Amino acid sequence: MEKIRRNERMSAMMRHLSAHPNRIFTLNSFCEMFGSAKSTMSEDIDLLRETAEMFSLGSIETVTGAAGGVRYRPVVSPEAARKIISELCAELSGSERVLPGGFLYYSDILSMPDTVNRMGEILATVYYDREPDFVLTMETKGIPVAFATANALGVPLVIARHSSKVYEGSAVNINYVSGSGSIETMSLSRRAVKENQKALIVDDFLKGGGTARGMVELMREFNVSVIGTAFVMATAEPEKKRISGARALMTLKIREGEPAEAVVTPADWL
Amino acid sequence: MEKIRRNERMSAMMRHLSAHPNRIFTLNSFCEMFGSAKSTMSEDIDLLRETAEMFSLGSIETVTGAAGGVRYRPVVSPEAARKIISELCAELSGSERVLPGGFLYYSDILSMPDTVNRMGEILATVYYDREPDFVLTMETKGIPVAFATANALGVPLVIARHSSKVYEGSAVNINYVSGSGSIETMSLSRRAVKENQKALIVDDFLKGGGTARGMVELMREFNVSVIGTAFVMATAEPEKKRISGARALMTLKIREGEPAEAVVTPADWL
Repeated sequence: MEKIRRNERMSAMMRHLSAHPNRIFTLNSFCEMFGSAKSTMSEDIDLLRETAEMFSLGSIETVTGAAGGVRYRPVVSPEAARKIISELCAELSGSERVLPGGFLYYSDILSMPDTVNRMGEILATVYYDREPDFVLTMETKGIPVAFATANALGVPLVIARHSSKVYEGSAVNINYVSGSGSIETMSLSRRAVKENQKALIVDDFLKGGGTARGMVELMREFNVSVIGTAFVMATAEPEKKRISGARALMTLKIREGEPAEAVVTPADWL
Repeated sequence: MEKIRRNERMSAMMRHLSAHPNRIFTLNSFCEMFGSAKSTMSEDIDLLRETAEMFSLGSIETVTGAAGGVRYRPVVSPEAARKIISELCAELSGSERVLPGGFLYYSDILSMPDTVNRMGEILATVYYDREPDFVLTMETKGIPVAFATANALGVPLVIARHSSKVYEGSAVNINYVSGSGSIETMSLSRRAVKENQKALIVDDFLKGGGTARGMVELMREFNVSVIGTAFVMATAEPEKKRISGARALMTLKIREGEPAEAVVTPADWL
């Protein structure tokens, strides 16, 4: 095999690692890929780690032990997160996006891959240490962000539905009280999750917390613990939500008036 | 600024380019990032292009002209695509996933980030040249794959809904005939797309093509042309679909029996 240069090895490794966030690659797998010795790969990884730090490209970590190796996590620094979310808030604030009933039109934001991927990375940064086994969301608008978060965490996405579907097999159905006080149903295929797993709930919008509460109770039915509940946007009112410990990237207030005005601000913890 | 080495510049560029698929980065932006001359960046890019080719990491292309620069496309070779899809087919075939009514349980596959990202890259590879302005899908199970395809294409994802929503503003609603012959509705916010744009339709499942046909007609209402319709899985029967030119990654046949058996095969074009 023609000798492969360091800059080629490092570039290729960067792509492989970042294409599979949070997955552990053994040193051996890279040794085979490049026909290099372990000591050479070790040096490459040290240099790559420094490069990632230097340019704020996420973190490259060595994991020790039998199942050890190297992994990439697209962590976002607090400064970078604040900048990204502040820019989003500026885009969303004002009168143009306010809809009748005090709703905000922001579906476009929730479906732009660049924006969604950055939001997913910001959320994953918060929850890496709690090691969720999967991300849970409710159909529909939160699915892209939940998927991006699951991608950054290297875990599957599980989607709860409003009703059971013929193509999902036997399912667990629960009832929950929605924000408007109506009784709604939520359904999840029995095949979707395993007992004793850890779930991270990610959704687009938090108002009263009825749907989020429903998802928490759905997980209880599966004997799965919820290690966090995260949202793109939470309304300032009501202050007390029906779940505790919820974390949102942005807060929404609608100022009444002609025209009404949306005031969207970054969350305090950013 | 301390002199930044080639291997550091190339690794950082690889991450930046692949974090924003199909986006054009000007040479100047990299010159600023690294404090390097244009000629240096040009050499770096040539080396990066060769590295990407050598290790089948996608393609790095120089785009000439006023709005020119360099971009990364996560293209997948036909051989790699066939291997990925064949492995999926093996996983999905057999009796374990067959549900009453001849349905197949594969929601798990549709929500695993690694798998979904590879499927999105395979589909994007097909459609780069037609330059869609956005990807359109219908809620719900196809959203992750449609998002991954949109991400690889560097364009927004647009999600059509079953009914109009309070948080979407004024919408266009159409009726369409579903596979089972019932009349269904499909809705899309007026704000979601612009006239004269080009749409790529991506969804999880194609059986009769009623829903796909609905999406094509929805786009007609917006004066948007459809440059392709792509699916994760299409049933072998009925052979004639209600849309023409549909492309699927896999074909599904259910063999009756005790137990019934799913035969999932890679599409011919792979």
